[in-house]
Amino acid sequence: MLSRLLLATTNRGKIRELVRLFEGSGVELLLPERELDVEEKGGSFFENAYLKAKAYYEAFRMPTLGEDSGLVVPALEGYPGIYSSRFYSLEWGGVEPLEGSRDRANIRKLLRLMEGLQDRKAYFLTCAVVCLDNAGLWAEGRCYGEVLREPRGEGGFGYDPIFQPEGYTKSMAELRPEEKDLLSHRGKAIRRLLELLKMLK
Amino acid sequence: MLSRLLLATTNRGKIRELVRLFEGSGVELLLPERELDVEEKGGSFFENAYLKAKAYYEAFRMPTLGEDSGLVVPALEGYPGIYSSRFYSLEWGGVEPLEGSRDRANIRKLLRLMEGLQDRKAYFLTCAVVCLDNAGLWAEGRCYGEVLREPRGEGGFGYDPIFQPEGYTKSMAELRPEEKDLLSHRGKAIRRLLELLKMLK
Repeated sequence: MLSRLLLATTNRGKIRELVRLFEGSGVELLLPERELDVEEKGGSFFENAYLKAKAYYEAFRMPTLGEDSGLVVPALEGYPGIYSSRFYSLEWGGVEPLEGSRDRANIRKLLRLMEGLQDRKAYFLTCAVVCLDNAGLWAEGRCYGEVLREPRGEGGFGYDPIFQPEGYTKSMAELRPEEKDLLSHRGKAIRRLLELLKMLK
Repeated sequence: MLSRLLLATTNRGKIRELVRLFEGSGVELLLPERELDVEEKGGSFFENAYLKAKAYYEAFRMPTLGEDSGLVVPALEGYPGIYSSRFYSLEWGGVEPLEGSRDRANIRKLLRLMEGLQDRKAYFLTCAVVCLDNAGLWAEGRCYGEVLREPRGEGGFGYDPIFQPEGYTKSMAELRPEEKDLLSHRGKAIRRLLELLKMLK
């Protein structure tokens, strides 16, 4: 089995969760010494995850893990979707001033666009791609739920404070990290990826 | 190891080669009873291969192999690229009348656009994606060479008659099938994919 994977990201929220999810797996995660400027020009989560994994693979020449995640709101034509992390700055839906963190600006914009909307269904999606060389693995995970009317909780990151998973009465940000990992899109994708990784010599 | 894979394609040229490449591998290939109308809206070979694999997986609920291939000509900004199979019908470069087969119309258009061009470097690329469930494998293969000034040979399909692999004096269409498989983009991608597939329980 593969013993080391370089994370093709410098996003602290993601790194924290990925480190948790790989704990005890036998796969050691490495962080890049510098951030690469990978243009997320892909038209899908899958493509963006691949572009990141590939770019870090080309630069560091070792097996890499790229992931792309986001929140999909069908009532908003799928937005924020692949634009989740920079939703606030998109023309679509009107640019939201960057006061406070990006996370907060993104959340403000999403709540504004969903004001009065009854259909609040949404899902988080993670697509993870491992690049071994000119080949690799991929996995995706989803977490269904709905968009709350105001933020709740301090845990997690991104849209977690306004997302309530199906069957729960807490927001994603109110869950303990171990609870979030069990049901989250990222948790599901990484566990499946690890199953496949463990079969590789 | 996986014993069966559904091919997410109805392209006869591809099917013929894939059947050859999987021969003796222990993986039985199945063909779909009907063609699905998969929109190749992806912006890359990788994305298109994934979209095909996924669509056939959703329809037939068994492990699928999607592949997308094409000829990349750097001197033409990467065209025909992901548009290889319908290059003749693109506005870009001027629509070519569909007289004879699509392959011939594509070739005529490419030769027209490259008339007088000295830089004739090109490569074939295959991206193969296996969809097992919400996860899978991927592999890519490349074959470098150059675009000839006129078609030669009757073998293969697509742009083979006007592509000469590096280090060879024959066109891809003049090679025997076993020779083509050894050096082709598709051969390389599938052999690497099979290595990974064989490790799966």
